[in-house]
Amino acid sequence: MSTSSITGLAERLRRFADARDWDQFHSPKNLAMALVAEAGELAAEFQWMTEEHSRSPDAAELARIQAEAADVFNFLVRLSDKLSFDLVAAAHEKIDDNERRYPAEKVRGSARKYTQY
Amino acid sequence: MSTSSITGLAERLRRFADARDWDQFHSPKNLAMALVAEAGELAAEFQWMTEEHSRSPDAAELARIQAEAADVFNFLVRLSDKLSFDLVAAAHEKIDDNERRYPAEKVRGSARKYTQY
Amino acid sequence: MSTSSITGLAERLRRFADARDWDQFHSPKNLAMALVAEAGELAAEFQWMTEEHSRSPDAAELARIQAEAADVFNFLVRLSDKLSFDLVAAAHEKIDDNERRYPAEKVRGSARKYTQY
Amino acid sequence: MSTSSITGLAERLRRFADARDWDQFHSPKNLAMALVAEAGELAAEFQWMTEEHSRSPDAAELARIQAEAADVFNFLVRLSDKLSFDLVAAAHEKIDDNERRYPAEKVRGSARKYTQY
Repeated sequence: MSTSSITGLAERLRRFADARDWDQFHSPKNLAMALVAEAGELAAEFQWMTEEHSRSPDAAELARIQAEAADVFNFLVRLSDKLSFDLVAAAHEKIDDNERRYPAEKVRGSARKYTQY
Repeated sequence: MSTSSITGLAERLRRFADARDWDQFHSPKNLAMALVAEAGELAAEFQWMTEEHSRSPDAAELARIQAEAADVFNFLVRLSDKLSFDLVAAAHEKIDDNERRYPAEKVRGSARKYTQY
Repeated sequence: MSTSSITGLAERLRRFADARDWDQFHSPKNLAMALVAEAGELAAEFQWMTEEHSRSPDAAELARIQAEAADVFNFLVRLSDKLSFDLVAAAHEKIDDNERRYPAEKVRGSARKYTQY
Repeated sequence: MSTSSITGLAERLRRFADARDWDQFHSPKNLAMALVAEAGELAAEFQWMTEEHSRSPDAAELARIQAEAADVFNFLVRLSDKLSFDLVAAAHEKIDDNERRYPAEKVRGSARKYTQY
């Protein structure tokens, strides 16, 4: 993947929607709704699995997980493209925030603190 | 952002979890559950907005949308890292599939077909 | 429906799970995960609809909406049954809270306040 | 609770929205979006819990779970009220379907079958 991995994906998704005249449906509100629906499908893959099993899914399970994760990702990229923000930069800012809110020396090993995360 | 935008993010999230001893909580099942919860928070930002308004959120709304999108993205990257798959490659494969399932010349302008998408 | 509408449903869901030996999968954690996945399917029914259209779905759309709402409801009833709480009482308490937090005379017609709801 | 447990709830939610002039925001599309957002908050209560722990939450956890389940339920009741369908009847129909699709004698003890549920 090149530097433009997400940029390249955003462009491809834009062409995909344009070629089908689907851009009209892609309001940020609708994209957020489609995204949470796909996140629900991703959750469904794991709903009856034990945590232990989820660490080593079989090949068919992993293929379905990847496909659902990809659907979430595509709507996330499309949303950030429509609203013109940089997903990777936003992700780093959020980690900056979390580093301040959860100083490692304070929360280390504290499951209780974690539950408020 | 460099070539390693997602790779760099995955590494930073790994260090973040390790420093806090939180890796124990990050089973793929739990990460998928956290991801759909964050996707719900993203949906909440849009729930009472009109579609029209969602195309031009004000600065405060956009900041919250970015922060929630970042949370979803971070859990998505973390999940793909724990299960060792390439999110961008999976996204492209999904678009390949969708190009086959929804040929542009057939679906162009058809909202009805779109609703089955 | 009798007085026991939800009670009757809870009992039927209990028998359904027991007859299939599925009770073992129905930890509250798993039920919550299944519930949010079904809520995602409900959202999917509406994702490309306009708000206006969603007020008058056609018969096929309404049938799918009802079926998805039923799935959410069944998992909600099952969850409340496993954790022994009264869903209707909890719902009334939540409305009590909301009546205190959003006094009608103050918020009437205020969309801005509403967005913090 | 009387026969009208859900009916009574639907009426109270209707008055609540009317008194605040919020009915304008309650298109079925928006209600479905709010519902999945609340389902995400319910999922969040369980995301880092073990399944085992989720079977016996402490008092504070249980109070939060009830409150989130109530939010989901209120939006579900409101949605069914706006679209004029009977939630309990729809739930029973869905169980009828599931009894046909998953005959007890065939699926008993089969976790694999269950994962397709």
